[in-house]
Amino acid sequence: MNINDILDRSKKAFFKYGKSSGEQRATLLETIASEIENLGDSLVKAIEEECNFVEGRILGERGRTCGQLRMFAQVARSGSHLGIKKDAAMPDRVPMPRPDLRKINIPLGPIIVFGASNFPLAYSTAGGDTASALAAGCTVILKGHPAHAHTSELVASAISKALDKVGMDQDIFIHVASSDFETGKALVQHPFTAGVGFTGSVSGGYALASYTRDRKNPIPVFTEMGSTNPVIYLNGAPSEEVKSRANMLAGAITLGAGQFCTNPGLIFGLKSEEFTTFYTSLSENISQIQGAKMLNHNIQKNYLAKMDHALQQKGIQLISNVTDTDDELIAVPSLAKTEGHTFINNPVLHEEVFGPYSLIVEFESQDQLEQALHMIDGQLTCSFLANEAILKENSSLIDIAIHKAGRLIFNGVPTGVEVCDSMVHGGPSPATSDSRFTAVGSDAILRWLRPVCYQNFPTSLLPKELQD
Amino acid sequence: MNINDILDRSKKAFFKYGKSSGEQRATLLETIASEIENLGDSLVKAIEEECNFVEGRILGERGRTCGQLRMFAQVARSGSHLGIKKDAAMPDRVPMPRPDLRKINIPLGPIIVFGASNFPLAYSTAGGDTASALAAGCTVILKGHPAHAHTSELVASAISKALDKVGMDQDIFIHVASSDFETGKALVQHPFTAGVGFTGSVSGGYALASYTRDRKNPIPVFTEMGSTNPVIYLNGAPSEEVKSRANMLAGAITLGAGQFCTNPGLIFGLKSEEFTTFYTSLSENISQIQGAKMLNHNIQKNYLAKMDHALQQKGIQLISNVTDTDDELIAVPSLAKTEGHTFINNPVLHEEVFGPYSLIVEFESQDQLEQALHMIDGQLTCSFLANEAILKENSSLIDIAIHKAGRLIFNGVPTGVEVCDSMVHGGPSPATSDSRFTAVGSDAILRWLRPVCYQNFPTSLLPKELQD
Repeated sequence: MNINDILDRSKKAFFKYGKSSGEQRATLLETIASEIENLGDSLVKAIEEECNFVEGRILGERGRTCGQLRMFAQVARSGSHLGIKKDAAMPDRVPMPRPDLRKINIPLGPIIVFGASNFPLAYSTAGGDTASALAAGCTVILKGHPAHAHTSELVASAISKALDKVGMDQDIFIHVASSDFETGKALVQHPFTAGVGFTGSVSGGYALASYTRDRKNPIPVFTEMGSTNPVIYLNGAPSEEVKSRANMLAGAITLGAGQFCTNPGLIFGLKSEEFTTFYTSLSENISQIQGAKMLNHNIQKNYLAKMDHALQQKGIQLISNVTDTDDELIAVPSLAKTEGHTFINNPVLHEEVFGPYSLIVEFESQDQLEQALHMIDGQLTCSFLANEAILKENSSLIDIAIHKAGRLIFNGVPTGVEVCDSMVHGGPSPATSDSRFTAVGSDAILRWLRPVCYQNFPTSLLPKELQD
Repeated sequence: MNINDILDRSKKAFFKYGKSSGEQRATLLETIASEIENLGDSLVKAIEEECNFVEGRILGERGRTCGQLRMFAQVARSGSHLGIKKDAAMPDRVPMPRPDLRKINIPLGPIIVFGASNFPLAYSTAGGDTASALAAGCTVILKGHPAHAHTSELVASAISKALDKVGMDQDIFIHVASSDFETGKALVQHPFTAGVGFTGSVSGGYALASYTRDRKNPIPVFTEMGSTNPVIYLNGAPSEEVKSRANMLAGAITLGAGQFCTNPGLIFGLKSEEFTTFYTSLSENISQIQGAKMLNHNIQKNYLAKMDHALQQKGIQLISNVTDTDDELIAVPSLAKTEGHTFINNPVLHEEVFGPYSLIVEFESQDQLEQALHMIDGQLTCSFLANEAILKENSSLIDIAIHKAGRLIFNGVPTGVEVCDSMVHGGPSPATSDSRFTAVGSDAILRWLRPVCYQNFPTSLLPKELQD
């Protein structure tokens, strides 16, 4: 694996691809989507084998992935990402004339994308990072995730076919299949690399950041890492609604064996009869849900280790039914409970446990709950289970939550991230490395663009989009 | 100096100020501008004493500073920075309904701003970073530059008066007058700090970046650092124009004793009769320009040391007239010359010399010139002195330059940074730490904002700007 050669090829391809039209990029992205669909059963089988997903989940994720590619095709075609601004010349202004000034966003250059373990399609080879970078006009070097190497190769072959079909340079997308740790490091440290996209663990994201620190020329590195996605329960619901809230939340905690970055891992509420009814009902719901297979042994090992570590802390009580299972890959959904002061005094309990585990925290007072909310790390989401009037009375909670998370949810759950213009899948560290950007939705393209200003340029020398 | 106390106060003030309306922020910014104007002669005298500026320069910079404050008032009032996007609910969508989703930009929190040595007003206490952060709804902790401590205190007093007049919390803006190195470090490392703005040297910017690396929660750090602002001369001009180009460039090199981040420090051209005529004329122009006083002894010492280091390199020839002067603070404008291959092989010659110094590089061929352009560091600007048809024939130069700089200039000079919507005062490292943002113009506010998405929120709980 010659990293210099890979970056040379990618940079050379970028000098042409970066100048391609939005229409050309749109056609490429749409053709990639079609070619992924054309993989048919072979892709479904590869994911079944490598990720233990049921078919429905695979088809859903494929739909989302191709939908994302087509959405970014629309963005590229419309030019909405170009951020064009113009200031006309004022030759007669005193004391100084103003020159003609025009601004447009241009692509950064070759981007390194790391496939995510938990989304073999939507956040991997032709996932959101790749689609948004290609739409921006960047070339992509994709480091496939070793846990679904065959899936990654299949998707890469679809991209290669699409590049051929539309008559574009194969080096616009380079697939790197190495599972070698050093390869990723060398890729992000190469001087030609212009940006990095990563979805994974906090430790993985921090390691990547440390590699890029030694660069002579710092570059944008976007890592989407960990989140415990607190859910705040406010009393005041009729008993039927208490149960339906519990039912909805149980589904979110156990969905996909809890292997989502938006999995709700913390449930906050005031010690009360209603909150007890709520979490008792939640516990009953969860104990009735069949455990699902996790992605692989490594992820399951980490799940059990992180959960054990949390459960060994003082003042933690396991309240869900843990049952043994024959299949060692099955993750049994688990619910634990603790007191507000215990949570506040033990940062271990604030950490993400990646899997179908959630911690209920019972607070003595609203002040104590607010204190905990102030203390927790940055989050992708924060949800409120409450009625409108009660939340309005407690709007100080929204004021705190808004400075902790990228998305606030009212009477809903954080799982199910909509791909649209107003989505924010981001948040303060460690949810992401830069809260000013989103990893999902049309604005994800902004991670790979930078503005350039043309001053006093004649029309014939301006990019087409900046001409009058 | 109790840093914890400062950040506590700033964060507390932020929780209220961050929720203020655009109109309230606009009034604050406009009142600050008026109060700076009300300082009158006392401010002018302070700057004369501390920075050795002539009155015209001071009045110009004051005009720009107050103009910036009023421009950001307009931005805050208009809400153009909020980036609002809405996706309506689709309750009947299959297989999954879509919730109502709305996005808005919110302020990051307390921002640490470092005053710049070379702009006591426009990039310091109430300069672009402070104005844009306040417009965004962030609170500001301003570390005054010790080289103009009295000026900084005067401006801080104007801000304090303005806060009083509009009835806002004094802690929205906290002035830290310490010249202590450790204070800056402690400020940027404090957990409550949400962002950093800095304008200064490459070494200073890198030091700041290294301090923030150890943070548990990484934050946006925007540093604007060094740039040599290459000017590319293309042959083909009538002799009158050759001279007028030389005249214009001589003015840019010597303006303000060369103490601008946009000072043109590199002049590229093909070895030829015309280019020789051009730089001979440039040298004649420059040798006739009276040297101006530099900001202070430290800056002059650095200027001489950096220039000497450059001139001691092999193959460098000093071609301007260096004359002695009685006033040791006077910086004599200097012009040096070298060959393309010497430049390409010696990175010392690529470095910024902060002051009225510029290096002419004579290339043997277009290929050699392009090679040099590929090699240089990221830049704030790149200028072309050329006629339209010739530059069109050589458009490959634009293709290279666009990936090196934040602003491309046709037949103009980089000094004189217009404050407007389409300005980009930024560029790849080391020009700035993040090329996706600008330090000048209305979009400078984007450095201090991040998006938040509201999902399924009832109207009564949405911020006013997101309501229907």
